[in-house]
Amino acid sequence: MAERLIYLPLGGAGEIGMNAYVYGYGEPGRERLIVVDLGVTFGDMDSAPGIDLIMADVAWLEANRDRIEAIFITHGHEDHVGALGLLWPKIQKPIHCRRFTGALARLKMEELGQPAEHIHIHAPRPEVIQAGPFQVQFVPISHSIPESSALIIDTPAGRIVHTGDFKLDGTPVVGEAFDPVMWHEIANEGQGIKVLTCDSTNVFVKHPGRSEAVLADPLREFIAGQNQMVVATTFASNIARLRTLAEAAIASGRQICLLGRAMRRMVTVGIETGILTNFPPVISPEDAAEMPRDKVMLIVTGSQGERRAASAQLSRGRYLGIELKEGDSFLFSSRTIPGNERGVIRIQNSLSELGVDLFDADDGLYHVSGHANRPDIEAVHDLLKPQIVIPMHGEHMHLREHAKLAEAKGIPAAIATNGTMLELSGEKPRVVDRIDTGRLYLDGNVLIGAMDGVVRDRIRMALNGHALVTVIVDEDDRPIPDAWVELSGLPERGRAGVPLADNIEGELAEFLDRADDRTVMNDDRLEEAIRKITRQVSMEEIGKKPEVTVMISRLAAE
Amino acid sequence: MAERLIYLPLGGAGEIGMNAYVYGYGEPGRERLIVVDLGVTFGDMDSAPGIDLIMADVAWLEANRDRIEAIFITHGHEDHVGALGLLWPKIQKPIHCRRFTGALARLKMEELGQPAEHIHIHAPRPEVIQAGPFQVQFVPISHSIPESSALIIDTPAGRIVHTGDFKLDGTPVVGEAFDPVMWHEIANEGQGIKVLTCDSTNVFVKHPGRSEAVLADPLREFIAGQNQMVVATTFASNIARLRTLAEAAIASGRQICLLGRAMRRMVTVGIETGILTNFPPVISPEDAAEMPRDKVMLIVTGSQGERRAASAQLSRGRYLGIELKEGDSFLFSSRTIPGNERGVIRIQNSLSELGVDLFDADDGLYHVSGHANRPDIEAVHDLLKPQIVIPMHGEHMHLREHAKLAEAKGIPAAIATNGTMLELSGEKPRVVDRIDTGRLYLDGNVLIGAMDGVVRDRIRMALNGHALVTVIVDEDDRPIPDAWVELSGLPERGRAGVPLADNIEGELAEFLDRADDRTVMNDDRLEEAIRKITRQVSMEEIGKKPEVTVMISRLAAE
Repeated sequence: MAERLIYLPLGGAGEIGMNAYVYGYGEPGRERLIVVDLGVTFGDMDSAPGIDLIMADVAWLEANRDRIEAIFITHGHEDHVGALGLLWPKIQKPIHCRRFTGALARLKMEELGQPAEHIHIHAPRPEVIQAGPFQVQFVPISHSIPESSALIIDTPAGRIVHTGDFKLDGTPVVGEAFDPVMWHEIANEGQGIKVLTCDSTNVFVKHPGRSEAVLADPLREFIAGQNQMVVATTFASNIARLRTLAEAAIASGRQICLLGRAMRRMVTVGIETGILTNFPPVISPEDAAEMPRDKVMLIVTGSQGERRAASAQLSRGRYLGIELKEGDSFLFSSRTIPGNERGVIRIQNSLSELGVDLFDADDGLYHVSGHANRPDIEAVHDLLKPQIVIPMHGEHMHLREHAKLAEAKGIPAAIATNGTMLELSGEKPRVVDRIDTGRLYLDGNVLIGAMDGVVRDRIRMALNGHALVTVIVDEDDRPIPDAWVELSGLPERGRAGVPLADNIEGELAEFLDRADDRTVMNDDRLEEAIRKITRQVSMEEIGKKPEVTVMISRLAAE
Repeated sequence: MAERLIYLPLGGAGEIGMNAYVYGYGEPGRERLIVVDLGVTFGDMDSAPGIDLIMADVAWLEANRDRIEAIFITHGHEDHVGALGLLWPKIQKPIHCRRFTGALARLKMEELGQPAEHIHIHAPRPEVIQAGPFQVQFVPISHSIPESSALIIDTPAGRIVHTGDFKLDGTPVVGEAFDPVMWHEIANEGQGIKVLTCDSTNVFVKHPGRSEAVLADPLREFIAGQNQMVVATTFASNIARLRTLAEAAIASGRQICLLGRAMRRMVTVGIETGILTNFPPVISPEDAAEMPRDKVMLIVTGSQGERRAASAQLSRGRYLGIELKEGDSFLFSSRTIPGNERGVIRIQNSLSELGVDLFDADDGLYHVSGHANRPDIEAVHDLLKPQIVIPMHGEHMHLREHAKLAEAKGIPAAIATNGTMLELSGEKPRVVDRIDTGRLYLDGNVLIGAMDGVVRDRIRMALNGHALVTVIVDEDDRPIPDAWVELSGLPERGRAGVPLADNIEGELAEFLDRADDRTVMNDDRLEEAIRKITRQVSMEEIGKKPEVTVMISRLAAE
């Protein structure tokens, strides 16, 4: 059978977050595979209460492990590398990345007790990594974390450019600038670019993206204009922003103090890997608390309203000896990711109650995005002249809009959401398979399937409350009529004014007293009858039907 | 003792939603009271899972019921009238409002079986309603629902203007325009305005608000430019927008069809009360399904992503015989209220999967706000020249910003959040009391207190899962060692690979076998020991501690 080139997103296509992409080349069903990125996304109360991390279900990769050549990580953001330590045991193949990303990947592996020696560090293009039928190069590309890379994936069927996350930034403050000359060269080597797999996050943003460098002046002016303590929050991994903020503070005669474990870790990794040079000296929280308030600036984690991050801690009162006060200034040098608004507003209100003045990035003065906007995406289409565009990293609406953009230029495109296998060998992309895919949840320290029912049950308990009923069937196979009801997350009293539990117990006692042997002797039947009565009484009393767990104890005749 | 004028917000101050304000005049502690608005807010999974409606806890009003003269409702939005039927039984005083608001208030009362004859309908100023020491007038003011009114509340201590929700709209399409001449007159009658209690929602929006009328042309052009079915969603109560949308559709040769109970009801009430005249004829969903796709426009509920609203139903497939298809257009003529983003994105993605093109109001082309922006608020300060400004209707940060705005002009202001009683008799507002206040939750058909623990337990079960343990103590006061464990919302297996429930049961059996009489004979002690073991085993096995309910059955010796 003819060999073919395939693309299979397992995460990140039809959603923003938890990126995981697969390319394959070979005979159908026997393609040799590489994996690009293994990221996470975060749970929320609406869809995944109690879940710490969410990632792609890689069961398909696990089942085809012997076909996998390697894993490539484009950059160090959580949604690209965060699942590495958790999913590596299912894949167990070499991991390739650049140095800074590698340092973060190492932490991900070590945290989970996985062998970090499988991480291989590479220089960017022109170094070529051979992985089965694929020759892969890391190509520097600008984004909001250093050493972000696109991948050139050369295959017998042609060249793929997998952009990873990117923006077009000629002056990114930290890290490598977008280099149009190099990309022009890449587009014009050999047969040119067959497939462009391209970031879609900002496809709806109509203006061209702005450089990180434009923030320096506004931030300096902002900080210089404040006369009490200044706090700025941003993404810990945005090292360029940390530098811009720190330098603006120093220029305004302030010392800087970093709060939040993720931020301190990121700066340490930045310095250790040589990414971050000449970062201004930082002072400890103890020293910051002692300094005159107009001589210090805190740079803190928690721009998304995370409950345990430094910004939330500060908003609730004293944190590490530092207390915010009337007249202090708090700057969100970040964008609120859709879905995080409630958390951010909660912190903003708490800060407001302390008398702290709030400044945010909504007007674009104090934040620029790390993703290519619509005109930038078009510029990349024009520069790289791919034969095929595959939109990736986006909600369905982003992928669709990006595909329309490419098609309007006459470039064939396909919307491939998670689990959709495309063949890319021909002139146009073609759907050749649908893989059963899904999400894995990290719950405590256990990985569970999103469809296992665990989270469904939690959501139901949260919405409906939980009624527990214990029934004992005695040695003579007669139920003891004193059923016992405990309610969790349910109103104590309903319409009748008496305790709801008493009311249910009363109805159950009547039922148990009269129940026939056929029901009593059959666990399922007895349980179902008890559940029904419990839900019925609740509906009458409080207007809703709780989840019901029935526990039937049968006493053994001795 | 000298008489005094007081202001006490019970809801809506320190939050957006569930408005409920109290004014009082008289001797301290014996002031005669009026209530302004009784609104709701909506629950979300983060803070109130399973809760349908949230409203102010009016326990203070209930305890002081004999001091209350009347209830005034400014306008018909849910966050101003939605709690009327639920809270009226605790207050039981006359309700005053204008006709359209009254029709909606009547529905709120009747739904809960409350006596609607307590609703009194009034003409706007110059009609004066006497309520104890207060003379109240309804003053037309523009907002996003017809017949919105500010209140003039004349008291022996001076004139209060309570704006309700408002914007400055000279051409509001439906309903009364903002009338600066009348407001100038109001400001200059007698002693002028002592207190301005003023909407703060949009205080952070820097540009002047725009009129509803500016949308007509863009909407007409938008609709004319689509060549398949068009769907537009907006707030059901925004009757002006419904008219603008409907007229734009008709002008483009389309018939209109309204989907969603709230929207049809609002139009009916609008027509019945004479607010809405000459509304274009609407066709049924059955007829809409039969029409050529480019000859029909649906106007639907669900702009906030509500799961059961028409927009969500349409996004999931066929609804009332209508099915959206590739090339149809869906317009959000609305703003996403912060916190609702997840729901809105979910619907947008589902629509995108159907091939529907999305258009939203982010660029301001297809939506204008119903609230006064910062320059508008300033204009009202300037026009009304109050001696005191009390910011209301806003998160804490909005109230604070609004207070700063007033103070910058030399007008004394106070941030009074829910439960803060201000005395307004002097030159400056003064905090004189803090009332224990809070929130009531409507759960099913029961009102529970936010602090009752019901919702706390639900959130805990959702985050941590729920382990149920049944233990039986026999007639000889010895526990039967076969404890039984059922898990809800917990992973089936943990680290050991065996079922978690089995593992816990094993540990409990060992414990019960050895437990001393002192523990066994004491329910609390036995329960605590069982809970501890259950949580410990879970922590070891799955890395998290579940909620635990222990049910101990003691068999009576016969």
